[in-house]
Amino acid sequence: MSLRELVAAEARLARAAVPHLNDVAVSHALREAATAVAERGDAILAANELDLSEEEGVLDPGTIDRLRLDGPRLNALAEQLTAMADLEPLPREGAAWTLPNGLAVSELRIPIGVVGANFEARPNVALDIAAQLLKSLNAGVMRTGGAALRTVTVLVDDVLRPSLEATGLPPGAVGLVRSPDREGARVLVSLPHEIPLVILRGSGETTAALAKRAAEHGVRALAHAEGGGVLYLHGSAAEEKVQHIVEQSLDRLGVCNRLNLLLIDHEARHLLPCVLGVTARLGIEARATERARTLDRSRLAALDERLGHEWANDAERVATMTVDLVDDLGEAAAIANHETSGLAAGIVAEDEAAAEAFLNAYRGTAAFWHATTRFTDGFALTGAPETGINVDWSPGPRGPVTYRDLWLRQYRIIGDATQTR
Amino acid sequence: MSLRELVAAEARLARAAVPHLNDVAVSHALREAATAVAERGDAILAANELDLSEEEGVLDPGTIDRLRLDGPRLNALAEQLTAMADLEPLPREGAAWTLPNGLAVSELRIPIGVVGANFEARPNVALDIAAQLLKSLNAGVMRTGGAALRTVTVLVDDVLRPSLEATGLPPGAVGLVRSPDREGARVLVSLPHEIPLVILRGSGETTAALAKRAAEHGVRALAHAEGGGVLYLHGSAAEEKVQHIVEQSLDRLGVCNRLNLLLIDHEARHLLPCVLGVTARLGIEARATERARTLDRSRLAALDERLGHEWANDAERVATMTVDLVDDLGEAAAIANHETSGLAAGIVAEDEAAAEAFLNAYRGTAAFWHATTRFTDGFALTGAPETGINVDWSPGPRGPVTYRDLWLRQYRIIGDATQTR
Repeated sequence: MSLRELVAAEARLARAAVPHLNDVAVSHALREAATAVAERGDAILAANELDLSEEEGVLDPGTIDRLRLDGPRLNALAEQLTAMADLEPLPREGAAWTLPNGLAVSELRIPIGVVGANFEARPNVALDIAAQLLKSLNAGVMRTGGAALRTVTVLVDDVLRPSLEATGLPPGAVGLVRSPDREGARVLVSLPHEIPLVILRGSGETTAALAKRAAEHGVRALAHAEGGGVLYLHGSAAEEKVQHIVEQSLDRLGVCNRLNLLLIDHEARHLLPCVLGVTARLGIEARATERARTLDRSRLAALDERLGHEWANDAERVATMTVDLVDDLGEAAAIANHETSGLAAGIVAEDEAAAEAFLNAYRGTAAFWHATTRFTDGFALTGAPETGINVDWSPGPRGPVTYRDLWLRQYRIIGDATQTR
Repeated sequence: MSLRELVAAEARLARAAVPHLNDVAVSHALREAATAVAERGDAILAANELDLSEEEGVLDPGTIDRLRLDGPRLNALAEQLTAMADLEPLPREGAAWTLPNGLAVSELRIPIGVVGANFEARPNVALDIAAQLLKSLNAGVMRTGGAALRTVTVLVDDVLRPSLEATGLPPGAVGLVRSPDREGARVLVSLPHEIPLVILRGSGETTAALAKRAAEHGVRALAHAEGGGVLYLHGSAAEEKVQHIVEQSLDRLGVCNRLNLLLIDHEARHLLPCVLGVTARLGIEARATERARTLDRSRLAALDERLGHEWANDAERVATMTVDLVDDLGEAAAIANHETSGLAAGIVAEDEAAAEAFLNAYRGTAAFWHATTRFTDGFALTGAPETGINVDWSPGPRGPVTYRDLWLRQYRIIGDATQTR
């Protein structure tokens, strides 16, 4: 069988499962799966050992670490499944009204059907995504980064599928692209009839290329590809809060929602030393536009990238951020809107009217006042893990996407034919 | 200037207008526009006369009729603008909650920005779409079928823009592709930064090709392209209701939501004469699958198209419908789901459990019990005219799309930095 036929076969199994999914059974199945993680721990760890043995020295240490499972991490997987089982089901009924002609109209949220998901080589993400798809009563076909394929195969075949079956649900509800080849991701986004929607986790050019391919094939993608947090320091900003939020915004590197572009208002230039104190302590290099460099040429390196460049995604200089100097709030919002991907931006300002104006002017997926853009995360904001982040400029799930977003609108109309002229 | 530069220039004007739009001013502007339609009636009719004089004998009579304006139709245009002004503004605040760490989170509905709209050569649609875009606080760039360009240009330049200006809003909020060339539509869907979302009205291959081009350029389209209503007659259907609903479903041809595919249950085959009585009276030719033809070979012509073919869109045989015979409700739902575009389907059944089962099994944009699929229309269902219909299988506006759907989700997070660890 070709890879395409293999993926289509998993999608067919998944599609056949969709009508059988229901909230009660899915919660049961996720609890079963939590138990199965413990029971099948040896098999999971053995597969993970094999995955790791092939990648040691090939992948970077961070990636290896995210791929690795051990006893405590197995426990965390089980807890994560139980937490998903405990979450409220997605409400299925939206607004309802009766028309003057007597027709009863309601807006329902029906399952999408088969949803694809492409993600990095992390076993915990596989369970996370599978749980979210099931929780929204969708079936799925997953594709993991090749390095985790053995581990994820055991998680699908020995944990998820038996748990579905034990609960009376069709095991094929969770499908897998059973090939480590990157071509698997390309196939996953090119089957519009079998898999009309694909969640693309991850950032950078690979994701952008997959999103483009999906579009060309008539497949909708919820994708991120680019991101980065913006922080604007208003003239009324309190130094203590600036220090705190900059620090919170750089507590972790390599993540899209960390501080990427700092915009200092002309009136707030006295706060630059405070910012540079934090970045120096954290080992972050500050690169600045020419106009910002006039503030402190010795501590601000020249920017050799466009303003909205996402450093988190730049393997060579992940510990870097950009600084720019702006004339006013309007310019800050314009830069955040037009020079960045529109993931998230925040303002530090004691002046409430200024904060309000910035929040109203910013058009990205999440706007913050006196809080770090690091909170741009489905779990942090909504209590449900996110399947990914979507940054496009169209109606539908935008920003962190959770299981609560994975539905289709359907109007349902009930009438009595003899009365509805 | 190239056509591309022209469209981009209109989009830039529109973009600059977006921050200035607000509900109160937009309502005022729409009322102003209603007055302006009357005041500028002569100029509108003169332009329309010119448009018509070029198309008489070129376009078919139906298209000519839809292009034509006269006194009463001008009045209708004004009323339509007033009705839009009277509609409730789009609610901007969604759910709101406070996190355990003290952050206040809310889901806002912010404007999309500049929305493109491509539609047929009908002057009333131009005002309709412009009003809906403004009502949702979006700016827009419209492209009309070339035959109506003179009329629509007067509606934009002498009605809409002066009314916006008189209300203190930037006139450029409503832009126009000022070329009758079809290339204008192709340009409109290929500017992802200027116009990230385009509404494509209309059906058929041209629309499908535009939707594909949009996707290739990273532009989101809300489009229809194919449709058609399905009606399933269950064994428990009452003859009186069958007759009534079939008749209601064929009250107009050439529209996507009219009855296109009739699925007769094996147990309901006694109802075929009733159906064929209605179609004969209305001059609709019934074409049937081989298995359905066994019921009445003399009155059912052989089907020479695939089952889900949309006759409404087939200029040569617009007065035709398809009949198929199915074994049971499951097969009917499967055909409606997999062999048609998923626009709308209905069931006639006295058996409530059967109706419920069919409604739950059908996955299209609108599901009907004892009501005709002709109600698949934004105005009929929601009281707001629709910008168009969207039939894709992804989260977001699906089915009839109205101004209430034209927004972006934004999370807004407000905290106190000293308290939010």
